[in-house]
Amino acid sequence: MTVSRTVELEGHIIDSGSMGACFGAVMDMGGEFEVEEFEVGRHKHEETYCRMRVLADTEEDLRAILHELNQQGAAVADPRDATLEAAPGDGIVPADFYSTTNHPTVVRVDGEWLEVEDVEMDCALVVEREGGETRVHTKVLNAIEEGDIVVTGETGIRVDPPERPRNGGGSFGFMQGGVSSERPSASLIEEIADEMREVNENDGTVLVVCGPAIVHSGGRDALAELVRTGYVDALSAGNGFAVHDLERDLYGTSLGVDTESLEHPRKGHKHHIYTISEIARLGGIEAAVHEGVVDGGVMYECVENDVPYVLAGSIRDDGPLPDTITDSIEAQDAIREQAQEADLVLMLSTLLHSVAVGNCLPSTTKTVCVDINPATVTQLLDRGSAQAIGMVTDIGTFIPMLADELLEP
Amino acid sequence: MTVSRTVELEGHIIDSGSMGACFGAVMDMGGEFEVEEFEVGRHKHEETYCRMRVLADTEEDLRAILHELNQQGAAVADPRDATLEAAPGDGIVPADFYSTTNHPTVVRVDGEWLEVEDVEMDCALVVEREGGETRVHTKVLNAIEEGDIVVTGETGIRVDPPERPRNGGGSFGFMQGGVSSERPSASLIEEIADEMREVNENDGTVLVVCGPAIVHSGGRDALAELVRTGYVDALSAGNGFAVHDLERDLYGTSLGVDTESLEHPRKGHKHHIYTISEIARLGGIEAAVHEGVVDGGVMYECVENDVPYVLAGSIRDDGPLPDTITDSIEAQDAIREQAQEADLVLMLSTLLHSVAVGNCLPSTTKTVCVDINPATVTQLLDRGSAQAIGMVTDIGTFIPMLADELLEP
Amino acid sequence: MTVSRTVELEGHIIDSGSMGACFGAVMDMGGEFEVEEFEVGRHKHEETYCRMRVLADTEEDLRAILHELNQQGAAVADPRDATLEAAPGDGIVPADFYSTTNHPTVVRVDGEWLEVEDVEMDCALVVEREGGETRVHTKVLNAIEEGDIVVTGETGIRVDPPERPRNGGGSFGFMQGGVSSERPSASLIEEIADEMREVNENDGTVLVVCGPAIVHSGGRDALAELVRTGYVDALSAGNGFAVHDLERDLYGTSLGVDTESLEHPRKGHKHHIYTISEIARLGGIEAAVHEGVVDGGVMYECVENDVPYVLAGSIRDDGPLPDTITDSIEAQDAIREQAQEADLVLMLSTLLHSVAVGNCLPSTTKTVCVDINPATVTQLLDRGSAQAIGMVTDIGTFIPMLADELLEP
Amino acid sequence: MTVSRTVELEGHIIDSGSMGACFGAVMDMGGEFEVEEFEVGRHKHEETYCRMRVLADTEEDLRAILHELNQQGAAVADPRDATLEAAPGDGIVPADFYSTTNHPTVVRVDGEWLEVEDVEMDCALVVEREGGETRVHTKVLNAIEEGDIVVTGETGIRVDPPERPRNGGGSFGFMQGGVSSERPSASLIEEIADEMREVNENDGTVLVVCGPAIVHSGGRDALAELVRTGYVDALSAGNGFAVHDLERDLYGTSLGVDTESLEHPRKGHKHHIYTISEIARLGGIEAAVHEGVVDGGVMYECVENDVPYVLAGSIRDDGPLPDTITDSIEAQDAIREQAQEADLVLMLSTLLHSVAVGNCLPSTTKTVCVDINPATVTQLLDRGSAQAIGMVTDIGTFIPMLADELLEP
Repeated sequence: MTVSRTVELEGHIIDSGSMGACFGAVMDMGGEFEVEEFEVGRHKHEETYCRMRVLADTEEDLRAILHELNQQGAAVADPRDATLEAAPGDGIVPADFYSTTNHPTVVRVDGEWLEVEDVEMDCALVVEREGGETRVHTKVLNAIEEGDIVVTGETGIRVDPPERPRNGGGSFGFMQGGVSSERPSASLIEEIADEMREVNENDGTVLVVCGPAIVHSGGRDALAELVRTGYVDALSAGNGFAVHDLERDLYGTSLGVDTESLEHPRKGHKHHIYTISEIARLGGIEAAVHEGVVDGGVMYECVENDVPYVLAGSIRDDGPLPDTITDSIEAQDAIREQAQEADLVLMLSTLLHSVAVGNCLPSTTKTVCVDINPATVTQLLDRGSAQAIGMVTDIGTFIPMLADELLEP
Repeated sequence: MTVSRTVELEGHIIDSGSMGACFGAVMDMGGEFEVEEFEVGRHKHEETYCRMRVLADTEEDLRAILHELNQQGAAVADPRDATLEAAPGDGIVPADFYSTTNHPTVVRVDGEWLEVEDVEMDCALVVEREGGETRVHTKVLNAIEEGDIVVTGETGIRVDPPERPRNGGGSFGFMQGGVSSERPSASLIEEIADEMREVNENDGTVLVVCGPAIVHSGGRDALAELVRTGYVDALSAGNGFAVHDLERDLYGTSLGVDTESLEHPRKGHKHHIYTISEIARLGGIEAAVHEGVVDGGVMYECVENDVPYVLAGSIRDDGPLPDTITDSIEAQDAIREQAQEADLVLMLSTLLHSVAVGNCLPSTTKTVCVDINPATVTQLLDRGSAQAIGMVTDIGTFIPMLADELLEP
Repeated sequence: MTVSRTVELEGHIIDSGSMGACFGAVMDMGGEFEVEEFEVGRHKHEETYCRMRVLADTEEDLRAILHELNQQGAAVADPRDATLEAAPGDGIVPADFYSTTNHPTVVRVDGEWLEVEDVEMDCALVVEREGGETRVHTKVLNAIEEGDIVVTGETGIRVDPPERPRNGGGSFGFMQGGVSSERPSASLIEEIADEMREVNENDGTVLVVCGPAIVHSGGRDALAELVRTGYVDALSAGNGFAVHDLERDLYGTSLGVDTESLEHPRKGHKHHIYTISEIARLGGIEAAVHEGVVDGGVMYECVENDVPYVLAGSIRDDGPLPDTITDSIEAQDAIREQAQEADLVLMLSTLLHSVAVGNCLPSTTKTVCVDINPATVTQLLDRGSAQAIGMVTDIGTFIPMLADELLEP
Repeated sequence: MTVSRTVELEGHIIDSGSMGACFGAVMDMGGEFEVEEFEVGRHKHEETYCRMRVLADTEEDLRAILHELNQQGAAVADPRDATLEAAPGDGIVPADFYSTTNHPTVVRVDGEWLEVEDVEMDCALVVEREGGETRVHTKVLNAIEEGDIVVTGETGIRVDPPERPRNGGGSFGFMQGGVSSERPSASLIEEIADEMREVNENDGTVLVVCGPAIVHSGGRDALAELVRTGYVDALSAGNGFAVHDLERDLYGTSLGVDTESLEHPRKGHKHHIYTISEIARLGGIEAAVHEGVVDGGVMYECVENDVPYVLAGSIRDDGPLPDTITDSIEAQDAIREQAQEADLVLMLSTLLHSVAVGNCLPSTTKTVCVDINPATVTQLLDRGSAQAIGMVTDIGTFIPMLADELLEP
């Protein structure tokens, strides 16, 4: 930590979340902070004041951090005037121009703090001096004219993000700016693979919660391979998932239809109920595996590799299979045991079963929620894990790519 | 404020959001706080300590506040033992039993703080004394047996919510518990009506951003009435909204088809392009109103009541109408002017136009976002208003109910 | 039926759906048809030919029907030339101009059938005669120039909608044009009310399947009133719905909090588990009603008015209540009995329970599916009722408006 | 075609869609049909009768086809009694048991057609003979008892699917059973790759319509490679897509931040506006490529490989770039030209631009719609292409897997 700068925050910065966001930003971006002075607002109408030194490894890192703090309302202590530069052409701003937020902002010009007019985000700030008066206002990039005096850098600029209303505020919720989470799918999958590898190496337990879409969308073979290679230590699912998995096995080989060819797709609904009937006739999944009738797929690998599974019933089930626990209290007890032992839980394309597992998890267990429906991911993340990854993606491409990450040399 | 209690928090309570959440909870629930001691953690590895007195009007309010603070990790200072009571029957807990969170928790029994075993939310806490040893663990309600010693009330219980990892934490996002916002539709509509009434009484400006679904779903007549009665001061929309509104007028009366009867629904697509052609022939919306060809609907009321409107074009438009601004920079300039003047913005069932308006709004302008798609509401709320109501509802029932609220005697 | 016209269709019109769509359109629009000649294509490569007379009450009705048939590829037999008219100004088309589909089209000019160039939908057709050659091409409305020769009316125009590929076609699904179903919410609610009234008058059975969102979103009081007034004959729900309904009753009155005021929204999660505990203590819902502890709401009205209910358990339940059937096979049996007796089923904001009920319904039972999530409505409609209404709306505004329709004098 | 069977259909089988569905099923499943007799219903109350011979290559194929036809109401002519077999155990049905639909059904027992009682789908049919009376009713699998007489195979069974109501039917839409389209993602991607390869080999034109999510979700590099290798012949997008693509290039290499590492994700919003400013300063994308400032990504490959692109503006754009066409009529004209020339259109994660392109397409152009939002895919498929693939998947995994298919040796 070789470079530093001192910044100040003032206002209702604790309950507005600004103070926490500043501490978080410094840590997330690899910096350090030293609080030099801190006066807490002792009543709801008293403001809080904080002065802290921010440290970073390089000048560039420091600038990135200061940029974030600026958005949260922190201003550099001992301020200097904002730096100004003329626009080199129409519609062209200086390379380091200051891009605005939508919060009220003041800019220091000639030693004086000037309120920015026409607040709007993603604009440049233009300084106009006319008849002894100086004004600062926003201008969209396409309206910039050659010679406009444009604010650059971050010095001499103070942003004033809104604070939680002191007296309720009715139904108008106080919105803290969230960090949007659009992230590259492939990179996220790598990180999830790393996490699974780490749990695996520490003899921890990875619990996978599975929905039937895994089979429909073509993720079944990759999941079976993860079970076989030891990356899955326990499995929680419903009757439907197991039936679909077994159906692929039974009707993919016994009737000679290649299930990947998309041919004869109209016959599927009949196979579903036939599969249930067949497994019931044999006495259950384990028996069907041992008699050689079932010889591949996720449930097969669970039986062959002693990976314990819980199949919980629901009122929409066909059948069910003999293995399915139809009483919901008994099923919850079985799920509870799985949940309490897990170090990492992957919730894959099932809302009902993921909620059931989530209900039994301590907030300290890491969870990964994958679903194509963003509402499902949001609902699962809101349920209380402190460390969670949510990913809105196609389970039929997710599992193969995850298996590639884990199994490719 | 006649009753009070002192509570303590300790840990990385600023960047985890706990401190802010506690201040916020006290204020939201009508209480006051007095910070008695505050030691800020000066570095990222130093913890923060806060002791504050919480005040409320009644003992019941105070308990409700303390319950919230407890969930955030605040513990009552000068603690007493947890209160215990025997379960009166199988599956039956004492009336005031403590219902668990999913966070690590300690309970004070016989002067000692005991770690809760098998952390799980929405359970009871059962104390077991056996051979000189005392344990506290969770138990789901249906497993409670008569005579189980159950923890009641909130005293002697300390919750330890997770803290933001000190060293990044990779892709596992740190989740702060959000307050879920399922709220009764009718009550929210009342509050929005109140807000509109207040802006109206203060000669403020209500800007309504309109999508075509308003017309499809049957909200058009009520919106026209709100324009006519002065509750809408400016309107921002696309070509499609205006065409649908005019089509309803032209083909609802001139061809004798009752648009509410659902009859002949197959002919609609032809009327759309015919409407554009007819308005173009007359020279625009205002001309069509003045010539008496258009004599009802939202656009008609805007013309008749001098409510200014901006119609912005897009590449998916048919036509467009002569009134539509087809250049996106010109359209943005017109929208910018509307946005900067607005005191309250209602964004009704349009993502494109709402984002365009939102881009030009200062964070201090109140906004209401209504859409049947939760993703649209979330996206709009995330864009930066500090005070916002989001409502996932059917615009075809929302606007009539809003008009009823505002216009019924 | 006083006016008529003869039309012809040719091609693979049975498996492409054109023939069926033509018959359907005539009937839906109040007309009649008389098939004069019909040569079925006896092999997959043979085409079918149909000549039929279409009858309607008025010339206007007939034109509307012919317009629909034209879109499906039917052409008026004994054709005349297309009617042509010069455009009266730039960007202005003649009032009765022909608006194009996106299908290949031929137009009869001077006795000859000409292929339309640059096929595109929602355009005008412009005829150009140049050096002895005549061409017909599409032109978007804003490109029309004064004097352009534009096709009007529907005579002399033949549309050729695509046919199902004879040899599979791989994954490219054959798309039959669907009728989009955007319809005014208020009008649909009226029709549902009419249907309920009719079932009620014929001593039929209305089964309502209820999700917890009914309570969250404020539809509970209106539903309770519909139970009380006899419009609901049976109720199917999960543990969650009943608990939320009872919680509103218990904590809305006994603790003095007005549940409609949006105050203290943070305490809800605790009341949920307290409600379960309290009803368990009393021995069940019926006992709680009889002891006067529960004195309002949906479950209360069911008990008081002898409306039978089935509460089916699931693995995500808290509790559950003593009334909840926790075994999924037993629960299915109870649901099956309800389903087989129903004449009209309203599925309100629950996927799990609606699927369970739908699994047991004959295809002849009328169903209404209401949900704010379009995917839920689609999934339920796809499950096999022959007569169904799907409505994407807010249950919190839907039920109050439905109750208004049924109960207002 | 070595095996055949004659089937009959009767009723309003044209407008109900049954006749077309039967013809379609035979062709989709590789069979042939020969219509032996066809009596069309000449008025809306007259029924249609069809007798046809169905041919297939193998007995197994024929049975699969007959199974489909049976679901549509076709019955084998010259019927024999249903085959019956005793259940071998409790909850166990004979291997070839008939699994029911939810339509009214009759079964031929002892030469008599008996109506099935308690119609419900996915059940077995059980025959009971008692005191000279014979009944057939449904039974769920788990209720089957040893010795129950169960119907097997498909002979002697006639299904009666519902017909379109003759007199409207009000708002209750007539539902034709749709074939659900859950298909394995990887297999579909293979077929799309085959289609692209074929267009490529025939010197056809593949037009790709691109949304910004391609860049966010990590599909950019693979798309750039497809442009470079000649699989993309034209590109249509908005200002946002181009800016995101360029931003990745500019700030991924010039500032030394590895864009795939997920580090410093908070700075993105500033780079966006900086990118616009930088490209504007250089005079546009082509200039930026030629000056070597932009040296990778989708837009770079378009410039380097002479792949023409259209960037259409919208009111939500920042900037825009100098290359963006801001007037929507001009932009539509440019899009129209692209659309008319395309042989295959890939619509990737953008609703606005896909609708704009779709508006200009003839119904004969093949289209592929990919989006993570099912509503977007549905809306695009409904707009009128006759041959279309819709795929609900993650664009960030879709494009890499598509590129692998096309480019891997």
